[in-house]
Amino acid sequence: MKSRAAVAFAAGEPLQIVEIDVAPPKAGEVLIKITHTGVCHTDAFTLSGDDPEGVFPAVLGHEGAGIVVEVGEGVTSVAPGDHVIPLYTAECKECLFCKSGKTNLCVAVRATQGKGVMPDGTTRFSYNGEPIYHYMGCSTFSEYTVVAEVSLAKVNPEANPEQVCLLGCGVTTGIGAVHNTAKVQEGDSVAVFGLGGIGLAVVQGARQAKAGRIIVVDTNPDKFELAKQFGATDCVNPKDYDKPIQQVIVEMTDWGVDHSFECIGNVNVMRSALESAHRGWGQSVIIGVAGAGQEVSTRPFQLVTGRTWKGTAFGGVKGRSQLPKMVEDAMKGEIELAPFVTHTMPLEQINEAFELMHEGKSIRSVVHFSE
Amino acid sequence: MKSRAAVAFAAGEPLQIVEIDVAPPKAGEVLIKITHTGVCHTDAFTLSGDDPEGVFPAVLGHEGAGIVVEVGEGVTSVAPGDHVIPLYTAECKECLFCKSGKTNLCVAVRATQGKGVMPDGTTRFSYNGEPIYHYMGCSTFSEYTVVAEVSLAKVNPEANPEQVCLLGCGVTTGIGAVHNTAKVQEGDSVAVFGLGGIGLAVVQGARQAKAGRIIVVDTNPDKFELAKQFGATDCVNPKDYDKPIQQVIVEMTDWGVDHSFECIGNVNVMRSALESAHRGWGQSVIIGVAGAGQEVSTRPFQLVTGRTWKGTAFGGVKGRSQLPKMVEDAMKGEIELAPFVTHTMPLEQINEAFELMHEGKSIRSVVHFSE
Repeated sequence: MKSRAAVAFAAGEPLQIVEIDVAPPKAGEVLIKITHTGVCHTDAFTLSGDDPEGVFPAVLGHEGAGIVVEVGEGVTSVAPGDHVIPLYTAECKECLFCKSGKTNLCVAVRATQGKGVMPDGTTRFSYNGEPIYHYMGCSTFSEYTVVAEVSLAKVNPEANPEQVCLLGCGVTTGIGAVHNTAKVQEGDSVAVFGLGGIGLAVVQGARQAKAGRIIVVDTNPDKFELAKQFGATDCVNPKDYDKPIQQVIVEMTDWGVDHSFECIGNVNVMRSALESAHRGWGQSVIIGVAGAGQEVSTRPFQLVTGRTWKGTAFGGVKGRSQLPKMVEDAMKGEIELAPFVTHTMPLEQINEAFELMHEGKSIRSVVHFSE
Repeated sequence: MKSRAAVAFAAGEPLQIVEIDVAPPKAGEVLIKITHTGVCHTDAFTLSGDDPEGVFPAVLGHEGAGIVVEVGEGVTSVAPGDHVIPLYTAECKECLFCKSGKTNLCVAVRATQGKGVMPDGTTRFSYNGEPIYHYMGCSTFSEYTVVAEVSLAKVNPEANPEQVCLLGCGVTTGIGAVHNTAKVQEGDSVAVFGLGGIGLAVVQGARQAKAGRIIVVDTNPDKFELAKQFGATDCVNPKDYDKPIQQVIVEMTDWGVDHSFECIGNVNVMRSALESAHRGWGQSVIIGVAGAGQEVSTRPFQLVTGRTWKGTAFGGVKGRSQLPKMVEDAMKGEIELAPFVTHTMPLEQINEAFELMHEGKSIRSVVHFSE
């Protein structure tokens, strides 16, 4: 079938809106009509060419909401008409990782997903007869996309897709990191580095967890108002200080914060976040995705004196098991999504979403596929 | 009073056996007669001049056993005749850290201990009228030493001091790291990097925890026999491979080990240990002490895909509360200490203990003060 799509033909170039061909779903696959998709920093990261797994041409996008159109052979967990959120972190419920009870990092489709193809090693997208690659197992920048059954969370059809599409990535990652990875407890102190969509979601998660003090750190003070609305208690702009930001945080809190979160993907900030953690028990969670080949460093003394360094992907959330509940939470207002959606636009204007993001003017732009 | 002591007069020079003056204990302090002391890599590290907290001249030594001779004003928890182990990690039971229930990193005497003086800012040691500094709050290389009350564990007087002195540092650190920091569970896989006293103690701890597979890594295969006796199931010499040792471990175990321990103080090995940890949930514990200014690095992807990086000091053990029980465990044979004591010698030969250690010929040399 034909589908409107924003295609990344080459690294560093704007997306092109073209009509691509989408092949029917094979066994274990599902054809979805995407109704809404967020535009995330990870899309921009891959488009920039810095992502070692980036392949072109590709249909990017991984933060979407849609409706099942057709299911391939053997698919039982979803049916046409179901409302779904595609998952870049699949949940097969059968692999070593899914069964461990310790992680959400399912490996069912991992190897092929990283290469931009479906589990059988081929792509369902083409343009003028030439193959176009998939992206993160989702490719939500196409009105019609094909994903693996294990990469789909079935959600309440009453939910507002313009908002809950954000649960496909950023908001879930931030909130999940607080509850699943850091396990923030009532009264704990928290520092959040970077107030993009993920950082603001961490602030919401920290408030849900009844954190005592929520310190937010960003070089753009325009972000502070929304952070306060979500629960931030202290706003820190590193540009206001002559000393390292970790020193500022440690002095503000006597010994550092119980939990810090890096929500940017900057390896220097990752170090600052770790070194802002409390002597004896503070932990720091890396959420941001660093550029290829970049490394984090610290003095081992930081760890020997009781700090713990962790990371998280998709906030430790098991998508098929846990995302439906998060959608319900959003419908009840326990997760606030509306303030994240600062801009909306039709598919044809998707490149503006990237520009707004690069300029720091948007939290999230959401693309509508309806004409 | 006069006391025989091995004094480090300057960095990089052998210790000198001299008769020093030891002042009586002040309030909150205790005078101890040391009967035995181990010689640990940390003593050698400080003696080398690489320790940023190293001050000279000093009485080194921090792995001892002794008997209380005299107590200062206000001391209530020990009395003359009590058998004790000095603690370089104090336990005051009153500071923020002791009360947290989350760490053993008491701060009661931390600031002064790091400067080589008693809590009142002065030293009890002198030689020819010139002050000699304390070390790690213990200074066990003197027959008589003064330590803070909060830095003393009272232990069973029936225990063999030639052996239980090792619970003052290395053995407790290794066993404690397994139980308190990593919390190894039955059936878990473990990799131990470096088979000095601490690494071998980690092996014992892992066996106590009923770990399933215990992989030991050392470039000196002479260490493997004792490691096997303590419970190692696989012995790996990195020199036998052309590829990075983390790759070897990951291939041996499919996805890496549940827990890895760095027991050397080499920042490159710390990285290897982390990257040997299981995708999704593996954790790596830094036990070794790196040289001043050295840094650990890795790609943040290692953390984002579920590995956790931690460190431990004194194995997370609260000395006054927990060490007496470990002494009992050693008396029952649940901790095997005898195999660690590969050499014994009088104080006059203490420099030989350093040589044996540097040459990799000893696990632990224990110095006897008795004539």
